[in-house]
Amino acid sequence: MELISSTQNPRIKAWKKLQKKKERDKSGLFLVEGYHLVEEALKSEVTVKEIVLAEDVDVPQEWSITGVEFIRVTPPVLKELAETETPQGMIAVCEKPDLENLLFEGGQYLLLDEIQDPGNLGGIIRTAEAAGLDGVIFGEGCADPYNGKVVRATQGAVFYMHVQHMPLHDAVDRCRDNQIPVFGTSLHGSTFTAIAPQEHFALLLGNEGTGVRRALLERSDQNLYIPIYGNCESLNVSVAAGILTYHLRGD
Amino acid sequence: MELISSTQNPRIKAWKKLQKKKERDKSGLFLVEGYHLVEEALKSEVTVKEIVLAEDVDVPQEWSITGVEFIRVTPPVLKELAETETPQGMIAVCEKPDLENLLFEGGQYLLLDEIQDPGNLGGIIRTAEAAGLDGVIFGEGCADPYNGKVVRATQGAVFYMHVQHMPLHDAVDRCRDNQIPVFGTSLHGSTFTAIAPQEHFALLLGNEGTGVRRALLERSDQNLYIPIYGNCESLNVSVAAGILTYHLRGD
Repeated sequence: MELISSTQNPRIKAWKKLQKKKERDKSGLFLVEGYHLVEEALKSEVTVKEIVLAEDVDVPQEWSITGVEFIRVTPPVLKELAETETPQGMIAVCEKPDLENLLFEGGQYLLLDEIQDPGNLGGIIRTAEAAGLDGVIFGEGCADPYNGKVVRATQGAVFYMHVQHMPLHDAVDRCRDNQIPVFGTSLHGSTFTAIAPQEHFALLLGNEGTGVRRALLERSDQNLYIPIYGNCESLNVSVAAGILTYHLRGD
Repeated sequence: MELISSTQNPRIKAWKKLQKKKERDKSGLFLVEGYHLVEEALKSEVTVKEIVLAEDVDVPQEWSITGVEFIRVTPPVLKELAETETPQGMIAVCEKPDLENLLFEGGQYLLLDEIQDPGNLGGIIRTAEAAGLDGVIFGEGCADPYNGKVVRATQGAVFYMHVQHMPLHDAVDRCRDNQIPVFGTSLHGSTFTAIAPQEHFALLLGNEGTGVRRALLERSDQNLYIPIYGNCESLNVSVAAGILTYHLRGD
């Protein structure tokens, strides 16, 4: 197995650049950091190209690893590639899934409007995957789903979930064309428990500070609201996504 | 108004130490960072002692500010005190609320077992406050609720919510003595929607990796489970807290 000990090695420099969205878009690759997440990537349909290992880390024999190149690196090189303080000695270079455009022929979707916090975006993808939804649409102004922080917050759900960039007005058009009811989230909506679970739905979730854009709320079939019984104005958007998603999908 | 331009000023050094739990415990003080959070602290029952301001930041006239000392500081001093990159020119020194021990004579509570991520803890306090619960118990191994990251993630809910440290076996004892049903969260529990909303309840939520300790699950009245329809094993703990809290409290 190759050992790389220089942070100036061309492959290391190329992988380091994958911390930037521009390079991920250009190359179609992204980084996955940490033992548990690399294991999840290998189990999923995502193609793992290379696994970078610390010198003292071994790969469990039971991992399915055909077609994957292993590269050992020294601690300074691992640190150069890592975004976390404790990368657990393992970083994988993966191909972004080659997703076809969602057709919206029925199904259950989340439509995200300008959600910027990577932890929230990752938590929302994790919830959508757990709830068995069909897709998460990243509208205008959302962070990149293959950003390292988002990937880590999904705890691997991003390897399974259909995540797609699309202008949200187009996504609403598609839903309307296919009789999928669109629900907005708004302080001026109906209490969510007044709405029955839905076989098909699209749920609009908005920016942490400003919520869903008004032009989108005006195009929804109905707007929902989670009642607040305390002094604070609102819930965290990934918590709100969880409450509404599990309510709308039903048992 | 006093202007402090040295990071070595004794008051600045004393406040800087409030970034550590030990000093917060000793002094009974904590820091609140950012315009919106300081505004929330002033609106609440929490006592704001001092407000540290950047030179170019003014305090809105409508803020209620009797008994608060204002201190202007230069940018390097503000940076020294700030934990975020953009403290919005404002940091307040506040007194930790002088909370009496919860009596558990009925009510709705969250019991947190070894939850360590500050973002999750803050999100849970925010949800508990929004849902109108009576208290959040920080059991063994939880981070400090007055940690800066926790305070920011609560978005101000920590100024209103009754948050208390207590060994969780003691909290369960108190609930049992007062006929408050205790619900655990466990992969081996009942689907949560099979349980009706409850006037009184205590909900046990567990560590991000290992869940609620078995010895506590064995003492609960019933254990609940959020069904997973996808490939991932679990939900984020603050998302799970939101789904279960809003279900158990009911409309």
